[in-house]
Amino acid sequence: MSAEILCIGTELLLGNITNGNARWLAEQLAALGIAHQRQSVVGDNRTRLMAAVREVAGRCRVLITTGGLGPTPDDLTTEAIAAAFDTPLVEHPEIWADIQARIGARGRFCSPSNRKQAFLPAGAAVLPNPTGTAPGMIWTPPAAPGIQPGFTVLTFPGVPSEMEAMWFATAEPWLRSAGLADGVFASRMLRFWGVSESALAEQMADLLALENPTVAPYAGAGEVKLRLTARAGSVAEAQILLAPLEAQIRVRSGRACFGVDDDSLASVVLEQMRRRGETMAVAESCTGGGLGAALAAVPGASDGFVGGVIAYANSIKQALLGVPQALLESQGAVSDSVAIAMAEGARRATGATWAIAVTGIAGPGGGSTEKPVGLVHIAIAGPDGCSSEAVRFGATRGRVWIQRLTSGEALNRLRLRLADCPGAQL
Amino acid sequence: MSAEILCIGTELLLGNITNGNARWLAEQLAALGIAHQRQSVVGDNRTRLMAAVREVAGRCRVLITTGGLGPTPDDLTTEAIAAAFDTPLVEHPEIWADIQARIGARGRFCSPSNRKQAFLPAGAAVLPNPTGTAPGMIWTPPAAPGIQPGFTVLTFPGVPSEMEAMWFATAEPWLRSAGLADGVFASRMLRFWGVSESALAEQMADLLALENPTVAPYAGAGEVKLRLTARAGSVAEAQILLAPLEAQIRVRSGRACFGVDDDSLASVVLEQMRRRGETMAVAESCTGGGLGAALAAVPGASDGFVGGVIAYANSIKQALLGVPQALLESQGAVSDSVAIAMAEGARRATGATWAIAVTGIAGPGGGSTEKPVGLVHIAIAGPDGCSSEAVRFGATRGRVWIQRLTSGEALNRLRLRLADCPGAQL
Repeated sequence: MSAEILCIGTELLLGNITNGNARWLAEQLAALGIAHQRQSVVGDNRTRLMAAVREVAGRCRVLITTGGLGPTPDDLTTEAIAAAFDTPLVEHPEIWADIQARIGARGRFCSPSNRKQAFLPAGAAVLPNPTGTAPGMIWTPPAAPGIQPGFTVLTFPGVPSEMEAMWFATAEPWLRSAGLADGVFASRMLRFWGVSESALAEQMADLLALENPTVAPYAGAGEVKLRLTARAGSVAEAQILLAPLEAQIRVRSGRACFGVDDDSLASVVLEQMRRRGETMAVAESCTGGGLGAALAAVPGASDGFVGGVIAYANSIKQALLGVPQALLESQGAVSDSVAIAMAEGARRATGATWAIAVTGIAGPGGGSTEKPVGLVHIAIAGPDGCSSEAVRFGATRGRVWIQRLTSGEALNRLRLRLADCPGAQL
Repeated sequence: MSAEILCIGTELLLGNITNGNARWLAEQLAALGIAHQRQSVVGDNRTRLMAAVREVAGRCRVLITTGGLGPTPDDLTTEAIAAAFDTPLVEHPEIWADIQARIGARGRFCSPSNRKQAFLPAGAAVLPNPTGTAPGMIWTPPAAPGIQPGFTVLTFPGVPSEMEAMWFATAEPWLRSAGLADGVFASRMLRFWGVSESALAEQMADLLALENPTVAPYAGAGEVKLRLTARAGSVAEAQILLAPLEAQIRVRSGRACFGVDDDSLASVVLEQMRRRGETMAVAESCTGGGLGAALAAVPGASDGFVGGVIAYANSIKQALLGVPQALLESQGAVSDSVAIAMAEGARRATGATWAIAVTGIAGPGGGSTEKPVGLVHIAIAGPDGCSSEAVRFGATRGRVWIQRLTSGEALNRLRLRLADCPGAQL
């Protein structure tokens, strides 16, 4: 009952693009409990593509291909797969009518080359493409020696969004109804800030060894994640396996766990604001707007985020945030006292309940022994006062990395401050 | 003289990580002119790994593997490759001494399991790993039927930084000295804004068909790129092939070409500022800081970028940028007149020579028939006055996409305005 993935495209072999489709499909197969033992990539070459398809047909039950379904001469997936099993192509008039209608609706000319997309091997079913012109197919070639019994090919275009829509609409239900999916998986991603991947893995060592549910750690830009996955007869049963595991991880990790699944530090902080009926502002020096952008990336951010000041130059810190020139001169722009003056200035200027200020040295230039690249001061001002603390991110991973960590760390500090603060409900 | 890449790791088959190594290696092979016709991924499974290695040995001259060189029982690449060609492993005491020294230097305990990393198949040469403990090997298994003459395996760990260091230090020189690299490649990436990939491809149709140098188009988030690659006997000769091609593309595409290689719209605009001795500020509504963050991501941004105001809420547009309440009420926040008032207000408040203002509807909520999601007004204020224009990005690709395109479009408008403006040297 195993599956293989075959991605088709010379651009993959030239290293022009990363094979994100293979990863995405692999994740889907894992979620369905379908064993997946090999992935391959071949170019837009008929002979080599035919050879690869025949090899796979001798090894596994399901072949999933991506790429090569377009209208150009380079796109030869359907034709090569048909030829690999000595099967003629037949035209599907309903596909051709659909392609003409879609291209016409965009006010474009439908070229004769599009017509080849309406041809599938005899006996193949259409795998509809709701968002693009190139449909795929679900095809079980005629039984023959050297072909696994029931061997079936599912073809997808290389455009990720089209592939994904086709997967959920048709391919996944087909795999389930064909009895290929082994049980049901449910998974949950727990998100952490302020703990290293290795420290978290050590803390959860016994849980990482579990077989069902499983726990797997991932590291991102400052964030660490644990993916919890359970297999069971139904989604409800799988959820029942996950719940006590999640509870145990949350108890062990304490406040480092900030959210689940699609949560971000920004979305969690904005949710705190919403529940409290409060607002927040930012005053950014070294991040130059990145902290605000993280907040603005969350749909509905305007409920809690009012904006703020990008005080990149010292003149802006003075003019828009009222940071005293004397303070800038005596303490330097990268200092707790300036961070505090920025946060208080932002709160005053915007009228927001809370303000975060960040000032630091993102590098590569501008560092000194006393104030090295990676040093950042983060202040939070609120109704109960203002405090600032320094953090050192180090210089090795570069400017943009320091800017990203600064935004995350600042949001996390506000999250914890709100959690401690009267009125907190999160 | 072809090569294949085989990446080893169950985490790839589970979709836990994207196979960035395959892309990176593919790019290196292309740059060396080594034909690369297939990539594969297998899990940490001895039998299947042995089978995959034997298949590749019958198809090509060079096999490059990644992964499975660590000390744990899962790491079985070296042993399985040796077994695939019936060759015993022999210990290299110098590797074991080196591993002990490296681990000792970090103050850690060297476990007995590390010792297996000192074993290579008889006859294999060490492929040194300057930055990690796991070395690779360069090995030509004994000639046998079904194995391509001279077939050679190069193994690398899965850690990208270690693999890359080993490639440049040892593997690439070895491939060249073995006569496998066919000439030298030079490439140059031209970057465009304000033109679609298909329109650019049509304009350059004859150039896309060239064989040496080659031209290949890529699309990003609003940006379109053309990669020019030339093959010749030396880098200097390759550069000579590229120069007239680049000149021709620049003439044909006009001002849409904004830069090359590592340039970004932000770095190009900041370079314009530097040459002119001028400064710039931003006033951001719908991007929430993303425009400033794009500028601040460029090292040395402080020479030209002073900062600005994140005027997400209307109250901030009034308080910090002086946008009249009456204007907000009569025209709405998403309008040319408010964009102009924001840009002029930012210029006034910051004292910068130029200011960009953006105000729009990033969605998913907040759109109307008249002012749909994706509608953005962009104003640029400078010494010669202020103007604003609307742009419609559409709603289909979502909030963060609209925010990114807005930042790019705003920077591109400032770039073009500066190019037209007296004093421009770019």
